[in-house]
Amino acid sequence: MPLVYVTRRMHFSAGHRLHAESLDEETNREIYGACNNPLGHGHNYDLEVTVVGEPDPVTGMVMDIKALKDLIQKEVIDPMDHKFLNVEVPFLARQVPTAENIVVAIWRVLQDKLSGVKLYRLKLYETERNIVEYYGA
Amino acid sequence: MPLVYVTRRMHFSAGHRLHAESLDEETNREIYGACNNPLGHGHNYDLEVTVVGEPDPVTGMVMDIKALKDLIQKEVIDPMDHKFLNVEVPFLARQVPTAENIVVAIWRVLQDKLSGVKLYRLKLYETERNIVEYYGA
Amino acid sequence: MPLVYVTRRMHFSAGHRLHAESLDEETNREIYGACNNPLGHGHNYDLEVTVVGEPDPVTGMVMDIKALKDLIQKEVIDPMDHKFLNVEVPFLARQVPTAENIVVAIWRVLQDKLSGVKLYRLKLYETERNIVEYYGA
Amino acid sequence: MPLVYVTRRMHFSAGHRLHAESLDEETNREIYGACNNPLGHGHNYDLEVTVVGEPDPVTGMVMDIKALKDLIQKEVIDPMDHKFLNVEVPFLARQVPTAENIVVAIWRVLQDKLSGVKLYRLKLYETERNIVEYYGA
Amino acid sequence: MPLVYVTRRMHFSAGHRLHAESLDEETNREIYGACNNPLGHGHNYDLEVTVVGEPDPVTGMVMDIKALKDLIQKEVIDPMDHKFLNVEVPFLARQVPTAENIVVAIWRVLQDKLSGVKLYRLKLYETERNIVEYYGA
Amino acid sequence: MPLVYVTRRMHFSAGHRLHAESLDEETNREIYGACNNPLGHGHNYDLEVTVVGEPDPVTGMVMDIKALKDLIQKEVIDPMDHKFLNVEVPFLARQVPTAENIVVAIWRVLQDKLSGVKLYRLKLYETERNIVEYYGA
Repeated sequence: MPLVYVTRRMHFSAGHRLHAESLDEETNREIYGACNNPLGHGHNYDLEVTVVGEPDPVTGMVMDIKALKDLIQKEVIDPMDHKFLNVEVPFLARQVPTAENIVVAIWRVLQDKLSGVKLYRLKLYETERNIVEYYGA
Repeated sequence: MPLVYVTRRMHFSAGHRLHAESLDEETNREIYGACNNPLGHGHNYDLEVTVVGEPDPVTGMVMDIKALKDLIQKEVIDPMDHKFLNVEVPFLARQVPTAENIVVAIWRVLQDKLSGVKLYRLKLYETERNIVEYYGA
Repeated sequence: MPLVYVTRRMHFSAGHRLHAESLDEETNREIYGACNNPLGHGHNYDLEVTVVGEPDPVTGMVMDIKALKDLIQKEVIDPMDHKFLNVEVPFLARQVPTAENIVVAIWRVLQDKLSGVKLYRLKLYETERNIVEYYGA
Repeated sequence: MPLVYVTRRMHFSAGHRLHAESLDEETNREIYGACNNPLGHGHNYDLEVTVVGEPDPVTGMVMDIKALKDLIQKEVIDPMDHKFLNVEVPFLARQVPTAENIVVAIWRVLQDKLSGVKLYRLKLYETERNIVEYYGA
Repeated sequence: MPLVYVTRRMHFSAGHRLHAESLDEETNREIYGACNNPLGHGHNYDLEVTVVGEPDPVTGMVMDIKALKDLIQKEVIDPMDHKFLNVEVPFLARQVPTAENIVVAIWRVLQDKLSGVKLYRLKLYETERNIVEYYGA
Repeated sequence: MPLVYVTRRMHFSAGHRLHAESLDEETNREIYGACNNPLGHGHNYDLEVTVVGEPDPVTGMVMDIKALKDLIQKEVIDPMDHKFLNVEVPFLARQVPTAENIVVAIWRVLQDKLSGVKLYRLKLYETERNIVEYYGA
C-alpha cells in the first residue's frame, strides 16, 4: 500500500533571547554572541509539519489538510505568534529557545494530537539560511 | 561508490474538483469543503522528480538532466498542463485528483521509463503551503 | 511630509477559461491557445495591494495593515478563492478572466472602500513568471 | 543619457514592540493588537536599497555595488541586526518602530552618505506579506 | 482608458568577466575585485520584461504573453544562455558586461520589436541580492 | 535522546565548462550540449550543509551555527566563489565540474573538519530547477 507524506507550511513571528540560566553572563555572551542580546531580538519563523499515512481509497486523502492546518494553528501558532518565546510559551518553559529546542518541543505538542496518521518530520526555518529538522526520538 | 540524488523541478497549471463519485453530494461537501466547488478551481503545481544513481566516472553525471527534463515534459507536463484533471488526464481516470492521488499516479507513469537510474522521490507542491511526497510502494 | 507605500500580499486559487463570447471557437483557440481549453484550468494567484499615505504622527502607521488584510479578504479573496472565475464572481461577470481584466476589476472593487489612504497599485501574479500591474485609470 | 536603477538587498533580524508612549495601555492594545505584546516579538527583515545614476562610460557601473553593500552594512544593518528596535537603535529613538517609521528613518541615515548617485527607493519587507516603500519626502 | 503593465519573467545562465579594456590590470583589479578574475565566473540571471498598453476590449489582453515570451526567448535568451558574455553576444560587443550595461543593451534589442505595446521596464537579477532596472533613455 | 538536523544555506557564484578530457570534441558536444560551450558559462549556486547530533542539554544547540557558517565559508565558499571551477579549485582538479562531482568533492572537504556532529547531507542548487543531494558513500 502506498505511503504518502503530507506537509503543511505555517508561519509565525516571535521574539527570543538565547541565554542559559545555568551559565554566567560572560559564558553566555561567548556561546550565543549577538543572539544573547539582553533585550532579545526576533524572527519570522516558517514551520513545516509532515505527516505520513496511506491515502484513503475513497477520499484520496491521507488527512484533511484543512484539519492539519487548524490543529497546528491552535496548538503551535496561536501560542507562539507575536510572543516572546523565553517566557510566554508554556511548552518552552525552562528551555533556551534555540531552534533545536523549539522543534523538539513542538514535536511533543503535536505527536499525541494526530489520529490515523503518524507525525513524520518537523522542519523549522529560523531564517531562510538557518534551518533545523526533527524526526522524533 | 557514491550515490547521488538528482532532482529536476517542473511546473504546470491545471484545474480540478475534489469529488468522490461513490459519496453523495452532502458528504462530498463535508469532506472537501471549498475544494468541492462544482465548477472546480485550479492551481500552479510544482513537481520535483528525484532519481538516484552513481555518477558515471567519465561524464560525472548520474543522468543527463536535459533527458530527465524532456521525459517529465512528455510523460507528465504535456498531458496535465492547462487541463482539467478530473476528466482530461488518462492516467488520473476514475480517481479523485487529490495531491496524494496525483503523486502516486505520476510515479506509475515515470517508474518504468527510466534506465540506469532509480526513481527515488516525487514532491508535488499544490500551493507553497500544501505539499506531498511519495517514495514508491 | 513623507508619503509611504504600504503593501499587503494575499493568496487565492481559482479556475478559469480564456474564451471571448463574441468570437467563434476557432478564433478563440488561435488567440488563447491552451488557455482556451473548454474545461478550463487554474492557478495559484498572488495579489499585492499597495496603498499610499502619510504615517500618522502618533501611531506611525499609514493604515492598520490588519484592517487592509481583512478588507481584501472580504472583498476580493472570499469571492474569488476556490471559484471558477468565468461564472462565479459577480464583479468579473461578462468579462474574459485574463489577468489584465481581473486586476482592473479588483481595482474597481477596492477603490471606494478605503478611507484615509489612496489605492496606489495592484500587482497580480498569475504564475511566478506572468505578472500584471495596474495603477488606476 | 541612460539612468539605471541599482538595488542591493540586505537582511537583518530584530525585535520590536508597537507601543505609542503618548497613548494609554488600552488604546495601544486596540491600535496595535498582538504587535503591542509587552514583551515584544520580532521579525526577519529584508531591506532593498535602490540608487539611481548613469553608468560610468568606462566601468559600466552606476556605483560599486560592493561599496553600496558595505555602506548599508555599516550604517543600517550593524546598528539594527539582533537588536530590540525600541531602545537600542539611535536613529529610531523616540519613535514607534512600525515598518513605516523604520523606512523613513533609514532614508535619513543613508541619504547624505551617497556620492555620485541619488538614493531613489527603500523597500522594507517586515514579512513576506507586509511590505513598505519610501521614495523620500 | 486603463493602462495595464504586463511582465514576463525569463531565466538564463551565463559566464562573464568584469574588465575594462581601456584600463590597466591593476586598476581593473581595484575596481572590479573578485569579478575581475581572469578566467571569469558566472550567474543565473532572471530577467523581467514589462510592457504597457490598454487591454483589447474583446480579448482582454494587452499583448499575447506567449508571443512576448517567444520574442524574449529568440532575441535575448537564445543569444545569451550558456554563453560567455564578454565575447559571444553580438549586442554586448565592446562593452564591459556589468548588469547595468547588459540591461541597457537588452533594451536596445527589444524596443523596436514590439508592436501595439510600449516597452516600459527591464529588471535584471544578477543574483537575488544584486538587481538593476532600466526604463529607457 | 533526540537527534536534530541543522542546516546552513550558503551562496556562491562561479563559472564552469562541462567537458571530459578523455572524450573527443564531438562526443563532448553530444553529451553536454550547451554546457560544453568552450568559453564556459556560470551559475549562482546555493549550497545547504546539514549536520546531525544531539542538542547540548545546557546550550540547546547541536552545533554553533555561526561556527558552521564560518567553516563552510573558509573551506568551500572562499575557494569557489567567483572562480572558474575547471581550473581554479584545488579539490575539483581533474574532474568535470558537474553538480554531482562538485557535491561529492565538497563532502570530502567537509567530512573531517567537523567535531561533535556528523555531516549528514549536502544539497546543491545549480539553478532553482536543477538540484543534487549527497549523503556520503
